[in-house]
Amino acid sequence: MAEIVAIKPVPEGPVTTTLDNGVLRIVLSNPPANALSLAVLAALQAEFDRARDDKAVRVIILSATGKVFSAGHDLKEISAHRGEADRGRAFFERIMGECARLMQTIVRHPKPVIAEINGLATAAGLQLVASCDLAICTQDSTFCTPGVNIGLFCSTPMVALSRNVSRKQAMEMLLTGETIDATTAREFGLVNRVVPREYLNQIVSKYAQAIASKSPLTLKIGKEAFYAQAEMGLEQAYEYASRVMVENMLARDAAEGIGAFIEKRDPQWKGE
Amino acid sequence: MAEIVAIKPVPEGPVTTTLDNGVLRIVLSNPPANALSLAVLAALQAEFDRARDDKAVRVIILSATGKVFSAGHDLKEISAHRGEADRGRAFFERIMGECARLMQTIVRHPKPVIAEINGLATAAGLQLVASCDLAICTQDSTFCTPGVNIGLFCSTPMVALSRNVSRKQAMEMLLTGETIDATTAREFGLVNRVVPREYLNQIVSKYAQAIASKSPLTLKIGKEAFYAQAEMGLEQAYEYASRVMVENMLARDAAEGIGAFIEKRDPQWKGE
Amino acid sequence: MAEIVAIKPVPEGPVTTTLDNGVLRIVLSNPPANALSLAVLAALQAEFDRARDDKAVRVIILSATGKVFSAGHDLKEISAHRGEADRGRAFFERIMGECARLMQTIVRHPKPVIAEINGLATAAGLQLVASCDLAICTQDSTFCTPGVNIGLFCSTPMVALSRNVSRKQAMEMLLTGETIDATTAREFGLVNRVVPREYLNQIVSKYAQAIASKSPLTLKIGKEAFYAQAEMGLEQAYEYASRVMVENMLARDAAEGIGAFIEKRDPQWKGE
Repeated sequence: MAEIVAIKPVPEGPVTTTLDNGVLRIVLSNPPANALSLAVLAALQAEFDRARDDKAVRVIILSATGKVFSAGHDLKEISAHRGEADRGRAFFERIMGECARLMQTIVRHPKPVIAEINGLATAAGLQLVASCDLAICTQDSTFCTPGVNIGLFCSTPMVALSRNVSRKQAMEMLLTGETIDATTAREFGLVNRVVPREYLNQIVSKYAQAIASKSPLTLKIGKEAFYAQAEMGLEQAYEYASRVMVENMLARDAAEGIGAFIEKRDPQWKGE
Repeated sequence: MAEIVAIKPVPEGPVTTTLDNGVLRIVLSNPPANALSLAVLAALQAEFDRARDDKAVRVIILSATGKVFSAGHDLKEISAHRGEADRGRAFFERIMGECARLMQTIVRHPKPVIAEINGLATAAGLQLVASCDLAICTQDSTFCTPGVNIGLFCSTPMVALSRNVSRKQAMEMLLTGETIDATTAREFGLVNRVVPREYLNQIVSKYAQAIASKSPLTLKIGKEAFYAQAEMGLEQAYEYASRVMVENMLARDAAEGIGAFIEKRDPQWKGE
Repeated sequence: MAEIVAIKPVPEGPVTTTLDNGVLRIVLSNPPANALSLAVLAALQAEFDRARDDKAVRVIILSATGKVFSAGHDLKEISAHRGEADRGRAFFERIMGECARLMQTIVRHPKPVIAEINGLATAAGLQLVASCDLAICTQDSTFCTPGVNIGLFCSTPMVALSRNVSRKQAMEMLLTGETIDATTAREFGLVNRVVPREYLNQIVSKYAQAIASKSPLTLKIGKEAFYAQAEMGLEQAYEYASRVMVENMLARDAAEGIGAFIEKRDPQWKGE
């Protein structure tokens, strides 16, 4: 199972993917900026949509080529639409809609998504990082929400940022546009781990493989419940999560997993 | 007032209690796992319910005997019910309901509750820690939500965990099932203090006594308001908390406390 | 533009202000306690209201003279009203209403507000710090919510505190009334930076000037959206923030800012 199977070998495309042992790697491959143009957003959306029901995909890694993870929206593309009759409104609505859809697709995705960052993540690029379930970056990685410097506050990136980082810390990034380093990003809660560049792939893959070894059904149930209960009051959250637990207990994988634990053997997941 | 009065001297029971100078110590006494079977949940519930209106109880410490604070649900008990006609559904619903009720009882309890941890707290055992108002642990303590390893995602523990710990940190624990050490738990916000094992009792007792010296009415008002306002928007939270403050100002204990402060003497609480 | 223009040179007042290069400094000038009496709340409210539509004001610094940033409500003023026929209820309702209004005015203010703290901030004084967008303090600064010691739980300060600091950390401050130092306040997320006393003014001014150099319209849009989306579920937050982004993109300052970025020149903000 350790062979690498390229399911979409389009090296010249803005987004490339490889599948290895249950782990789908989606790579932003449009350096130097890895800008999130409409075409790139659509390509990312297509990959995440395809992975949704693909049983061969258990965990997703989102990474990038080059020194910039992603610089966010393509400002030249945005500017180019200002000359239209509506001053660009229709295009702006479309690109913001597609961007928000992609971010929510990641959060609602049944498979865990790990951001692997080596370099700069800004604006909607940072939003991608914040939207993933986990994030691991190199010591050289940096993060910012610099929209305020160009008159365009990072209002959609902050939806994701402020659900990772405390208020004053998020506001400092948003109001000043200043860059934070990897250690600060970890301290703020934006990333889980900061690792040496030479070990990045290895460590992220280890995380991904560890998670890929769990029951896919259990991961799906749990991830969905995590973000759903986070928006509820305590009483409602317990009512909801208790129902989720009962259904999870009745699933075959929980019976198998608990049985294997009691019998001190490895579980065999069926994903049901 | 410093004598120890055992109000329920049942050394063989799964839960034991002692009352010392206004501080009720509820002890999980069913090592090695201190598993939260239906009987243990009921015993804990009974102690918390009894303490609610007992004026002799001002602060509660929740601790455990042995090397495991609590390993969470009793998996053998859960498995034993799979053979029933409904495949265990009725029992699962009952145990999840009792567990969620206990956790909310702690949060809604009029007396502050401090978790004292020396050892491993996992799954619903970690949920107990997260549900207490404060938590102090030894350097040897460890924490995890390992349900994902047995096909049963820690969906109810995460209701409490995610209200203590930031999203990516909670998701790392939940998706990998990995154990975190005491220092990490403090950094994540799951515990308040990490102390040497030989000083654990002493430090927790000092906290408990310090809190027990406050007005019980004020503690009740404040604790209830804390968790209530946390679920509201800012405007509603201020409307609510302002009303709470006005009623608190009109209470005898506030008049006494403010008077004592101005007159530079010790206040005499009446709890009204 | 670097001259200092005193717009309200009333050195004997409880609140003084200076305007320097777009930065309004509002100073609590009633040492030693800088207590928030009804008169002081009104004076602060008036300054924040005046600054709302004053185009000369781009950023606000809230600071204080003396060793105490603010000790919170004026307890003698509160006690003095207990002798009234309603035992003070009308006054208590009035002062809580004014206090909550001021705090929300800071949060809803179109201009970013930076707290500059050198000394002790307690109760409603801490609430002021927590309500500002950013906070920078000296190494000697300390923070507490000691209401529990005088029978009056800090129920309104905790509305602001608990939106900055995690649950167990906030509860420790509220239940014990203990003081935390500057480093702990930073670790908890209550302040952004801890700096040496001799550099406090300089560093806060540098932050303020950096933010004052941004488009005022963009700051207004972004700050308002930040606190609004924080109270929404993810889907609603994205719908809202996407609309905000589209309107922001259509504003002249975004066209100018993006254009300037692409053309590698400094932007000229019009605030529209």
